[in-house]
Amino acid sequence: MMIMRRDATDEDIKRVVKEIRRYGLKADVSRGDFRTVIGLVGDERRIPFDNFSILPGVKEVVKIETPYKLISREYARASEGENGIHRTVNIGNVHIGNGEPIIMAGPCAVENKKQLYTIAEAVKKAGAHILRGGIFKPRSSVHSFQGLGSIDRKSAETALKWMRDCGREFDMPVITEVRGEDHVDLAAEYVDILQIGSRNMYNQDLLAKVGKKNRPVLLKRHFGAGIEEFLSFAEYVAAEGNKDIILCERGIVPVGKGREYTRYTLDLAAVPVVKRETYLPVIVDPSHGTGRRDLIFNMCCAAIASGADGLMVEAHYNPAEAIVDGKQTITPDELQDIIKTCREIYRLVKTG
Amino acid sequence: MMIMRRDATDEDIKRVVKEIRRYGLKADVSRGDFRTVIGLVGDERRIPFDNFSILPGVKEVVKIETPYKLISREYARASEGENGIHRTVNIGNVHIGNGEPIIMAGPCAVENKKQLYTIAEAVKKAGAHILRGGIFKPRSSVHSFQGLGSIDRKSAETALKWMRDCGREFDMPVITEVRGEDHVDLAAEYVDILQIGSRNMYNQDLLAKVGKKNRPVLLKRHFGAGIEEFLSFAEYVAAEGNKDIILCERGIVPVGKGREYTRYTLDLAAVPVVKRETYLPVIVDPSHGTGRRDLIFNMCCAAIASGADGLMVEAHYNPAEAIVDGKQTITPDELQDIIKTCREIYRLVKTG
Amino acid sequence: MMIMRRDATDEDIKRVVKEIRRYGLKADVSRGDFRTVIGLVGDERRIPFDNFSILPGVKEVVKIETPYKLISREYARASEGENGIHRTVNIGNVHIGNGEPIIMAGPCAVENKKQLYTIAEAVKKAGAHILRGGIFKPRSSVHSFQGLGSIDRKSAETALKWMRDCGREFDMPVITEVRGEDHVDLAAEYVDILQIGSRNMYNQDLLAKVGKKNRPVLLKRHFGAGIEEFLSFAEYVAAEGNKDIILCERGIVPVGKGREYTRYTLDLAAVPVVKRETYLPVIVDPSHGTGRRDLIFNMCCAAIASGADGLMVEAHYNPAEAIVDGKQTITPDELQDIIKTCREIYRLVKTG
Amino acid sequence: MMIMRRDATDEDIKRVVKEIRRYGLKADVSRGDFRTVIGLVGDERRIPFDNFSILPGVKEVVKIETPYKLISREYARASEGENGIHRTVNIGNVHIGNGEPIIMAGPCAVENKKQLYTIAEAVKKAGAHILRGGIFKPRSSVHSFQGLGSIDRKSAETALKWMRDCGREFDMPVITEVRGEDHVDLAAEYVDILQIGSRNMYNQDLLAKVGKKNRPVLLKRHFGAGIEEFLSFAEYVAAEGNKDIILCERGIVPVGKGREYTRYTLDLAAVPVVKRETYLPVIVDPSHGTGRRDLIFNMCCAAIASGADGLMVEAHYNPAEAIVDGKQTITPDELQDIIKTCREIYRLVKTG
Repeated sequence: MMIMRRDATDEDIKRVVKEIRRYGLKADVSRGDFRTVIGLVGDERRIPFDNFSILPGVKEVVKIETPYKLISREYARASEGENGIHRTVNIGNVHIGNGEPIIMAGPCAVENKKQLYTIAEAVKKAGAHILRGGIFKPRSSVHSFQGLGSIDRKSAETALKWMRDCGREFDMPVITEVRGEDHVDLAAEYVDILQIGSRNMYNQDLLAKVGKKNRPVLLKRHFGAGIEEFLSFAEYVAAEGNKDIILCERGIVPVGKGREYTRYTLDLAAVPVVKRETYLPVIVDPSHGTGRRDLIFNMCCAAIASGADGLMVEAHYNPAEAIVDGKQTITPDELQDIIKTCREIYRLVKTG
Repeated sequence: MMIMRRDATDEDIKRVVKEIRRYGLKADVSRGDFRTVIGLVGDERRIPFDNFSILPGVKEVVKIETPYKLISREYARASEGENGIHRTVNIGNVHIGNGEPIIMAGPCAVENKKQLYTIAEAVKKAGAHILRGGIFKPRSSVHSFQGLGSIDRKSAETALKWMRDCGREFDMPVITEVRGEDHVDLAAEYVDILQIGSRNMYNQDLLAKVGKKNRPVLLKRHFGAGIEEFLSFAEYVAAEGNKDIILCERGIVPVGKGREYTRYTLDLAAVPVVKRETYLPVIVDPSHGTGRRDLIFNMCCAAIASGADGLMVEAHYNPAEAIVDGKQTITPDELQDIIKTCREIYRLVKTG
Repeated sequence: MMIMRRDATDEDIKRVVKEIRRYGLKADVSRGDFRTVIGLVGDERRIPFDNFSILPGVKEVVKIETPYKLISREYARASEGENGIHRTVNIGNVHIGNGEPIIMAGPCAVENKKQLYTIAEAVKKAGAHILRGGIFKPRSSVHSFQGLGSIDRKSAETALKWMRDCGREFDMPVITEVRGEDHVDLAAEYVDILQIGSRNMYNQDLLAKVGKKNRPVLLKRHFGAGIEEFLSFAEYVAAEGNKDIILCERGIVPVGKGREYTRYTLDLAAVPVVKRETYLPVIVDPSHGTGRRDLIFNMCCAAIASGADGLMVEAHYNPAEAIVDGKQTITPDELQDIIKTCREIYRLVKTG
Repeated sequence: MMIMRRDATDEDIKRVVKEIRRYGLKADVSRGDFRTVIGLVGDERRIPFDNFSILPGVKEVVKIETPYKLISREYARASEGENGIHRTVNIGNVHIGNGEPIIMAGPCAVENKKQLYTIAEAVKKAGAHILRGGIFKPRSSVHSFQGLGSIDRKSAETALKWMRDCGREFDMPVITEVRGEDHVDLAAEYVDILQIGSRNMYNQDLLAKVGKKNRPVLLKRHFGAGIEEFLSFAEYVAAEGNKDIILCERGIVPVGKGREYTRYTLDLAAVPVVKRETYLPVIVDPSHGTGRRDLIFNMCCAAIASGADGLMVEAHYNPAEAIVDGKQTITPDELQDIIKTCREIYRLVKTG
């Protein structure tokens, strides 16, 4: 990255950007409270760093060793100072990464308008901040229900409108998963946060596409991905200029023989690790991570205790009735208990 | 699946298909040498099987228990008899799954026309059957070279034309990876086999898109996927009517602490397992599976000995010069040795 | 298991035991507050259950489906009623599994008397309940320090005496690992709890040996073991009549490629899972589980939030000076913070 | 290691050994055809290498970077030259690592004399070289049959005598597993090769014990162990002066969700990797590695093709009748086919 002097002019910045492009790379201009920093997107080895260090306005040229440069703490610290090491992602009145644990709750799949509204009202009352609901459902089997969005474009649009209107009705921003490249433009018209599911974490074309939209992105870790890979793929979003990224741990593939007691292995140590490597907020999804309703309370508490900035939880007024993932879905009452306890744990841990 | 009587008329078949659609499912009509079988795409539980068994022309109604119904041995056996349990995928004069091990070789990434032609000539001489070459490269870091296809559409088209022409020149069908949904139509114009890379195995929208093209599909197992998932996602291709699927084992995520001696863990037992579960041909990619040039010979031999129908190998006249994956790339001379030995092992194992 | 009537006589019980032995199995007589239950050790299939159900004093004959029968909730519930589903392991004034989170702390390896006493005093002051210290150290390399106990018998005995005396001095029960079968008798003379390390979880001969000692046993999960295996090997201890078993989650082998950010993957969902499957208390060792001092605070909090009954933590007045595992060792001051916060989280979660 | 001059005297060697001990390490004197090399057992950092390089008879002082120094190729090359990089382990007329693939076959568990003799005769006729048979069986459940050796000492001795006599009768060396430390002395009286099972790979006290016996040792890789750990624990045997170690790959824990098609994941790339890291022979056990009789043929062929020096296979005249592991057991006829094909593959691969 090129760290500019505090008195660097717009002219100086433009010149550096132009030079970077001349070598076939893209420039990421980050104007912080502290100073302006210009990140590099592409193969740094092509850049003659010495030549840059003598350009007007350039204070210092620093190489970031990880493949996730633009989302690294080091990069934020350079432009924002120590305050920059934790970014708050703001969506309306909701501030992820600041002040209290943010709860995203709602049905696994949006089934119909009434189901959505009933659940939305209940989770709002329980204390949730953001409404989640699956419209384009990724499924392991082509023979399973793939969400209303997979029927046809009209159904997709209808369901998206329900989400938008329901969010307004209950004063919650809304989030939904975009599963394929074709969903991005459409979903971005209606929802506040675009979610990339675990199965698509490695889908770099999709990541680039959501990175170009003016919407916060929630990126779930792939269940086979190491942390370095997770962050390297988040970098695909950041490389498009979008740093409003919320990272989500949701469990990794189980190891070992025999009976599976949980769907995945929730890797909670990833939470403090990621928070030390990047400035991005991190949330946890214990619903998919465990697949078991009876473990959600404990694993929500543990997630917040591990340092998470929030939770994503599947809730339904009648879990047994849910078309998808009923086994891991809790009731609004259970959600309320969780939110109450998690708030206290959050306070204890952040000040502890 | 609905197994039709041998004397079932087209009328009978149409009626069954129509009935299936009436319940919101799609029908897969498989007219075998033995008899016609009609598979179901969608949630079977909606179907009143008893009602179907009494329709004219229906011999028997059978439920297939796995989520990979259309690619199961059971389904092929019903329409083709015992001969159906091994499908040969034919691409011009090349027959995968029949007679000899098929070798797909070429550079990891297509870099320029000369590089491609030089390698193609060499691998052809060494005995390879199909030319591989990466144009849209999936990469772990946004800061790495993403292939000529990722620069712009014109570069993509140029590289694809090189592939097509080079294949014709040296009489080899060509294969390239389609990384994003936008690549499918374009690539299908120029190449003979569409490859879905490991990172995209779970990308069901991409799978559906290639399934609609009239091209054989090579599907690599995701490195975090169990076999059941691997086959369930292959089913997404088959569900579009395309059964010309070649499955490829390329290594799974390493388990355990400490130094990594290989890039992934090549799961060769998956080869005979998959060949018992489905009728599809299976190949192995030891280049990505091990990441080590000095292991390629042994692991190619082991792959064929495990029952594989072919191999995908990265070869380059000067591996040290390759922009991508030089460490795992072998020379045409090494390839020739491998092909020679593998042919003999293939013969021993198939008749052993 | 054979559930006896509340009015069953000693005679009745003896008769059932004798009958069980006649079929080549061992009997585990569990006299609970509620009723007496007789468990079976060995291959149940040899037992003609019908014949037993008509013996005098037998109320009911029930087959437990898991391989971990004697430590299952079901078994405890039968003899103790609902109160039996959580066992408290008592060591002097310390009660694991009841009332507050129990902290086992101390040096990774006992290095000398002064080091041990200094650390013991400090961790006691910080609020720890039990003193840990390694004397027989399992090590990945034969070329590393294996603990004082591995030098010769005299050194082992000296170190064990330090432990015993130090525990008395600071009023803490003491725990040490027995690595080989030869260590069991010796260690049992001096320490209060016998620890089986992760690497020895599958060592059934060692488990049987500690099971015969009149000492609580702390069993760590092997880092390659599924939960079913973990519990099945705990059963080897219980089969010798010793139910004072404390189970310890300490991380499983990492999955995935690339840089390792933590030594192992702490599987915290295993805590509530194990507590639902058995009646045994569960603790967590975040020191080995993460291998990183900067993650210990968060992961201790998360462990307690997940439902753990206690923690095992490596502490040293000067971590940089520790011969073994300094990187994951915290100071007594850090320990004090952890204990304080964990107590509050424990209270929140248990009553939440 | 200290590489001695070819004209170094016994006096020189003794002096170096004495010096090494003075620093608290043990010396491993390796008198090769090429020259004498003195390895170090213990923490090298304590040794002032410069002081050693000027001792009489010392040619060169070299640090080996891996934790598996005494079994490294580098160590063997220093004393034996290039010929030393492949060691042949000789047991009577059987030479493992030289000339042909060595087959160890027999029942999973020795059940009675007749069963053992019948199987021994059949596997000998099929072409096997070494008779295997389990007497001390490691089992996941305390409620399962643990082998005749676990009943009492007398049964153990009887079964061991059967093994010894049966081996003599059919002119095959015999191998059995020693599961606990108490089994070592006893088993060493009767069998030719002492086997350490997968579950005990990390049991360093047991490894040290078998290392002291004058018997070749077969060490199975633990199913949760990386290769570096595997070799580091083999070093525990070598550190006792015993280099007649046969390494055995037998599958690692499965990764990923869903149905398990094989018991473990056979990591065949470990074979050529280990053969490049050490001079020890490597064999493969596809019976435990796959757990499926129908995969044994292919996986035996693949193991030999990957470069293995031999195989361990469970065989029984009537697999369905076997008390333990019948599902993965093949018949002598199947074994004969395997041996025949594997011999040809071995020849192809070694000369290929």
